[in-house]
Amino acid sequence: MKAYQEMGKQELTALKTQLEAAYEDAKGKGLKLDMSRGKPGASQLDLVSDMMDVLHSDSDMKTENGFDVRNYGLMDGIPEAKRLMGEIMGVPGENVIVCGNASLSIMYDMICRSVTHGVMGNTPWCRLDQVKFLCPAPGYDRHFAITQHFGIEMITVPMTPQGPDMDMVERLVAADESIKGIWCVPKYSNPQGYTYSRETVERFALLAPAAKDFRIYWDNAYAVHSLYEDREDVLAEILGLCEQAGNPDLVYEFCSTSKISFAGAGIAAIAASKANLEEIRKSMTIQTIGYDKVNQLRHVRYFKDINGIREHMKQQAAQVRPKFEAVLKVLERELSGLGIGTWTNPNGGYFISFDALEGCAKKIVARCKEAGVVLTGAGATFPYGKDPLDSNIRIAPSFPTPEEMTMATELFVLCVKLASVEKILEERNCERLLCKCSA
Amino acid sequence: MKAYQEMGKQELTALKTQLEAAYEDAKGKGLKLDMSRGKPGASQLDLVSDMMDVLHSDSDMKTENGFDVRNYGLMDGIPEAKRLMGEIMGVPGENVIVCGNASLSIMYDMICRSVTHGVMGNTPWCRLDQVKFLCPAPGYDRHFAITQHFGIEMITVPMTPQGPDMDMVERLVAADESIKGIWCVPKYSNPQGYTYSRETVERFALLAPAAKDFRIYWDNAYAVHSLYEDREDVLAEILGLCEQAGNPDLVYEFCSTSKISFAGAGIAAIAASKANLEEIRKSMTIQTIGYDKVNQLRHVRYFKDINGIREHMKQQAAQVRPKFEAVLKVLERELSGLGIGTWTNPNGGYFISFDALEGCAKKIVARCKEAGVVLTGAGATFPYGKDPLDSNIRIAPSFPTPEEMTMATELFVLCVKLASVEKILEERNCERLLCKCSA
Repeated sequence: MKAYQEMGKQELTALKTQLEAAYEDAKGKGLKLDMSRGKPGASQLDLVSDMMDVLHSDSDMKTENGFDVRNYGLMDGIPEAKRLMGEIMGVPGENVIVCGNASLSIMYDMICRSVTHGVMGNTPWCRLDQVKFLCPAPGYDRHFAITQHFGIEMITVPMTPQGPDMDMVERLVAADESIKGIWCVPKYSNPQGYTYSRETVERFALLAPAAKDFRIYWDNAYAVHSLYEDREDVLAEILGLCEQAGNPDLVYEFCSTSKISFAGAGIAAIAASKANLEEIRKSMTIQTIGYDKVNQLRHVRYFKDINGIREHMKQQAAQVRPKFEAVLKVLERELSGLGIGTWTNPNGGYFISFDALEGCAKKIVARCKEAGVVLTGAGATFPYGKDPLDSNIRIAPSFPTPEEMTMATELFVLCVKLASVEKILEERNCERLLCKCSA
Repeated sequence: MKAYQEMGKQELTALKTQLEAAYEDAKGKGLKLDMSRGKPGASQLDLVSDMMDVLHSDSDMKTENGFDVRNYGLMDGIPEAKRLMGEIMGVPGENVIVCGNASLSIMYDMICRSVTHGVMGNTPWCRLDQVKFLCPAPGYDRHFAITQHFGIEMITVPMTPQGPDMDMVERLVAADESIKGIWCVPKYSNPQGYTYSRETVERFALLAPAAKDFRIYWDNAYAVHSLYEDREDVLAEILGLCEQAGNPDLVYEFCSTSKISFAGAGIAAIAASKANLEEIRKSMTIQTIGYDKVNQLRHVRYFKDINGIREHMKQQAAQVRPKFEAVLKVLERELSGLGIGTWTNPNGGYFISFDALEGCAKKIVARCKEAGVVLTGAGATFPYGKDPLDSNIRIAPSFPTPEEMTMATELFVLCVKLASVEKILEERNCERLLCKCSA
């Protein structure tokens, strides 16, 4: 393959005509595919159909400590569910509160409580002139939406394959008391699929923030979501490291079974130090009488323990892997050596991150949409929805079938090529004009 | 029966000695009963055991509009659940958002959002010097806990058998822009079991509050919780009345199935005008990806419609009624004519409200506790947990068996008698001293 930048103007123009024709063809195919969100595919959900059978009219509805899950009580979760969610995160059950169906709601509540009531006796954020959050980016749009909703200023921190730029994180949090938190998806990050290195996690545990109420928001959404049995990432356990480092209260960790059992009908949990949990319980007492313990019991009876989860996730991986491979195969075949895009090849998670030439992402997403393939909006992976380079695109292969993913990716690469040719031609044009001007 | 006030000192002193002996006896019985919270009894929960069977591995998991409830989407609830919850409240499904398992959490969220973001473009309450809520009292302690949590000043409004003192409500909301809401349990009120009269509801719909962001928090928790088929209260439907009155946005209505299906594992909903719902959806988009639609579908498949709910509630009433009757029978037998207490005899709901002589409630609750019967804390039914007369006690008969309720109430009346005798003797003593002084 010849890199686009090495082509002459004539060659590029001919290529452009050819790509435009192919694009018009593609539009005619009437595609209607969605690779915008990390939605499980139906075949993944079918794998847990029999979860609907574990609780029935003759079931013992009591927890292991003899509590009737059909009634009020046990506000912070049933003990066996705390243990199960703890196993997913690699922490003891006593460090866990099990909540409702969505970890995003727990994160929202944590931020909201900090805004209205403050963290551990510190000034409520609503009474501060400035509150800032560090946002490793590209990152998860729903995280950024929460901080934006509460008027929290977001500071972009570059991501590397080892995690956020820790030099920058350390420097910023030490210097600025208005920085109150950082969003992290530490394993199979959204959207790159990177897993923070042990060194990164250790540096997180050793952070010395100026703000006493600084917290790491550790969204361990893909803790058990490996795609390949022989290529599994390992994430260091941060709660223990924080405790060892003398910073036990530094981190809130979140996880859910939304991408293990049912999306939106699973159970979600927060893990933290005992002091943090104590504070959370105090305001939970006002906020709710308790979460759905029947569903907590259903999950534990079904999966039993981390081994049950791991077995199940192998089956899920078998469903999801071909979809990732379909995307990667087309990207590799169609874009390798062209110098017009790079992409990640993650060992797990729900996404592939694609970086186009600067200034091309929006055009690519728009062209895909016009031809029937919906991608996550360009810019969504950055704070305020603004990608400074207009380059990053998140690909979510989980929902369509592998065949559909192939078709969708074929359209995608076509749009990448077209946008890239246009961009290079434009640049050449500008250079020519500049030469004329300076001549 | 001779009223205590008509007894002479000697008679009262003898009675006191006798009651004290009986109380010591009672303490020896080792009772351990809880009538503190509106918790369903196990026999009520058993009535819905087969709800666990309606969804199984072979079930069609699609909504009536073809949506897979096992996946993300339909953030504001599945259409059939909106319709069902709407039927409970007497409003169209399009005026309903179905959320998670607890209506209390929805109320918390509504207040919290008003604090952080304001209501329909009005100033967020966190930026106002003063925010006040009207609290008809005796009322529900968990309501008052939410407003207190957010530093909202609570103004007590007296309750009558027809609802809150509407003259006072009308006057206050018209005069004071800092009054932003009122807590209501309009049917089978907590703790009295009163149902607001049609006139009261109409006056609510016609309110002319000074604050544009004033809202009625209409917690219709006991909409279908009648105890007697021949004595059912009827509550006027407020959303329609508000619309007719030209005040469509004045009310938020809440309900849940916590006391229909499983306590804490049911579904909850909010009903409001389209404009209110639109605003709620906007911030829900930030707060969550969606609620548990599997449980929503389970509820609709089980109950089908309001007729299914009504049939089921008749069975529940058959379980709960004997418990209320056990309490009322003992109260009637032991306290009638003594002039030391009054109580309500509700047609539905979860509570009986008891008013002791002034200054006696705390003592009665403490004595009951000492002898093994836990009641709702005295004062809990008032804002800030402070009953100005120290007189009101909430009795929650639902959790123990009828036999246990008889035993518990027998202890209760004993404690009422003892506290009353002590109080009357003290008063006489004071009067005597006063006479001496003035002589």
